[in-house]
Amino acid sequence: MIQPRTLKGFRDYLPAAMMPREWLVDVARRVYRSYGFAPIDTPALEHLEILTGKGSDETDKQLYRFQDHGGRDVGMRFDLTVPLARFVAQHIQELGTPFKRYHIANVWRGENTQRGRYREFLQCDFDTIGTESNSADIEMVLVVHDLFSAIGFEEFTIHANNRKVLNGLLEKLGLQEKSTHILRALDKLAKAGPDVVASELAATAGATTAQITDILHLAALAGTNEQILAELGPLLKGSATGERGLADLAEMCSALAAVGIPSARFKLDVSIARGLDYYTGTVLETFLDKLPEIGSVCSGGRYDNLAELYTKEHLPGVGASLGLDRLLAAMEELGRVEKIATPAPVFLPYFDATRRDDYLKLAVHIRRAGIGVEFYPEAKKLGKQLQYADRRGFRIALIAGENELSAGECQIKDLASGGSTTVPLANNAAAVIAEIQQILGS
Amino acid sequence: MIQPRTLKGFRDYLPAAMMPREWLVDVARRVYRSYGFAPIDTPALEHLEILTGKGSDETDKQLYRFQDHGGRDVGMRFDLTVPLARFVAQHIQELGTPFKRYHIANVWRGENTQRGRYREFLQCDFDTIGTESNSADIEMVLVVHDLFSAIGFEEFTIHANNRKVLNGLLEKLGLQEKSTHILRALDKLAKAGPDVVASELAATAGATTAQITDILHLAALAGTNEQILAELGPLLKGSATGERGLADLAEMCSALAAVGIPSARFKLDVSIARGLDYYTGTVLETFLDKLPEIGSVCSGGRYDNLAELYTKEHLPGVGASLGLDRLLAAMEELGRVEKIATPAPVFLPYFDATRRDDYLKLAVHIRRAGIGVEFYPEAKKLGKQLQYADRRGFRIALIAGENELSAGECQIKDLASGGSTTVPLANNAAAVIAEIQQILGS
Repeated sequence: MIQPRTLKGFRDYLPAAMMPREWLVDVARRVYRSYGFAPIDTPALEHLEILTGKGSDETDKQLYRFQDHGGRDVGMRFDLTVPLARFVAQHIQELGTPFKRYHIANVWRGENTQRGRYREFLQCDFDTIGTESNSADIEMVLVVHDLFSAIGFEEFTIHANNRKVLNGLLEKLGLQEKSTHILRALDKLAKAGPDVVASELAATAGATTAQITDILHLAALAGTNEQILAELGPLLKGSATGERGLADLAEMCSALAAVGIPSARFKLDVSIARGLDYYTGTVLETFLDKLPEIGSVCSGGRYDNLAELYTKEHLPGVGASLGLDRLLAAMEELGRVEKIATPAPVFLPYFDATRRDDYLKLAVHIRRAGIGVEFYPEAKKLGKQLQYADRRGFRIALIAGENELSAGECQIKDLASGGSTTVPLANNAAAVIAEIQQILGS
Repeated sequence: MIQPRTLKGFRDYLPAAMMPREWLVDVARRVYRSYGFAPIDTPALEHLEILTGKGSDETDKQLYRFQDHGGRDVGMRFDLTVPLARFVAQHIQELGTPFKRYHIANVWRGENTQRGRYREFLQCDFDTIGTESNSADIEMVLVVHDLFSAIGFEEFTIHANNRKVLNGLLEKLGLQEKSTHILRALDKLAKAGPDVVASELAATAGATTAQITDILHLAALAGTNEQILAELGPLLKGSATGERGLADLAEMCSALAAVGIPSARFKLDVSIARGLDYYTGTVLETFLDKLPEIGSVCSGGRYDNLAELYTKEHLPGVGASLGLDRLLAAMEELGRVEKIATPAPVFLPYFDATRRDDYLKLAVHIRRAGIGVEFYPEAKKLGKQLQYADRRGFRIALIAGENELSAGECQIKDLASGGSTTVPLANNAAAVIAEIQQILGS
């Protein structure tokens, strides 16, 4: 006998875990689609050279790679961005630009699982390719806002920055060549404090005291969006890059206010950088106000050239990725996930062994009204069947024994309240359906 | 520069191909859920011994296998049945029975691609585990019927048989030990004719003339379901297995008639066997009447013991699998797939460069009414933007230049008919939404 087990770092999804996951994917799809993002899919396996081309050393190490039956070196995708770059380079003539896509699919990384991370996880990305317009950046924020509103979160904050702001200041200070060192030093600001960062800026980037003052001034900016914009003005004046970044952020703030996004939900935050190389303009992170410690649950930004490894075509873009697993864990922690293991609200016990066809007919009528109903397959004792229903989390049970069926009736039991009503079955179960709809509040 | 290309045997899904695919998956999910089947997911990678345990030599050969970072032998799943068996064996205590699940996920086979088959394809399975009740078999037929009706097919036929029928006859004839030879011979009936089959039955199974007559009589049964049932009676009389199979089929026919399944849609067909070993009771195939040559697009049946390799628990079950890729190909051939590359029906050109916030606001109002709208990100020439809209397949364009916006109006252009109307923007675009809904017929 073979021991039934999953691989280390992988997991099964049982119905109670899979249902909120499917629901979340549905919500994301609906929101993405409402903005005209269209679905695509790419293979789980790619030529190895495609995947190692752009990956970092870390992702290279985590790659699941092997030789296929034709002796080709292949790997399993570790994110959806590299496949998107390959996809767009390959099909751009047919797709045209701007190209707006979403892609919801599993990716695989042979990561160390000690941090509680899994080796297979679902990514949920949307991107607009082929435009430099700030409209697409603004839309990204709107999508993220709609997404979290649709999920039902009231308290979340989208933090945004623009890489051009710091780049512009460094350009103005003549330090643009040192940006890697400077970003690395600034990364320590929250933990180590300004004095340590100042020393490091002097040591690694050769910054002067005046330069350090400006950099730390920028990095420490806080207050309302208006205050931050006002303070950025003089700091960036004279740098075309910085002024462009500032203008884009200002435009974003005013557009979001114009369409009614509450100001508490959108916060300029100059501390956000999101990696050293990839992003070139807007950067965005999303935090749940009640669970800031889990980090950003939706992140993204603008990049200059998506597919430069695969095509000469210049393809700028902007997009974000929903951290679905992290979000699900957060929703569970916040008590937002119901423990229900059935997608059908109504349970129909098989009460009288001789009446199967009557039950099947009743179920057909209820399904035609768009209501899911599960018919128990065996004419077991009613108590056992109701135990099963309870365990699964059904909302309603329909009890119809020989007495009820002979009288052309059926008992409708609200499994939450325990109350029950008896209604006639006549007229294609119209009264049954009406009563179910009332209990379900639909 | 790296050449952007997919691996041999794999393919990308562009929006126009992905949208009908997503739609079909949605329909399948909705139907499965309406019967109380709940979603699950399992990892793409499994321990190799799990996958090779039950697979045939052919699937073993096609398996994508390698060693993971921990030196474990792993493989990519080649179907959803083996993972289901492993899953159920592992979790049955928590799941309880009957356990009804659907699983929609990709599987991988390193197949010869010359037959136009792909190495990655989507499976779409539903099963009821842990009951021997014929109710679950009947429900399987109802699910398949609902599925094809929901997809919009009028002309399809579900062919059903029961493995116990032939097994019962062979038992009665004392030939049960020869069933593999007999099935192999019968497989040639349609192509080679009864004489060839008779010789083979004599040669390989040692059947007598009387036995051959009975076997060929069974195999040639045709006519209405009632006629077939009537002829099976005397043939199977005296075999407990055969009589049970016949009773199950008869019960299935009467239940389906009782709930109103048109008799043309459900056909007893003794020629269906579906593999030599796996199925033990009901077997089912589904054909599109207009495209019989593509074979069964939804197949399944009953099996005695799903997880015997992984657990001592006896787990009978019944279920079927939708051949999604084959069905999509068929729908395309039948002209049932629209060539649309956008999930949003409404296109909003960026007409007047100074009015971005007005467009964003208008789009917000329309989305709140549940209607998808794509806002073009750049204030390019209107003609260019409409060209883009045409290529994507939008249904409606909203034209609002400086004149319209100053007058508080917007032009609604039906891109199919070419007609257009001008309506006021006031009242959160209520008139715009009403007009759009009318054009969309919603």
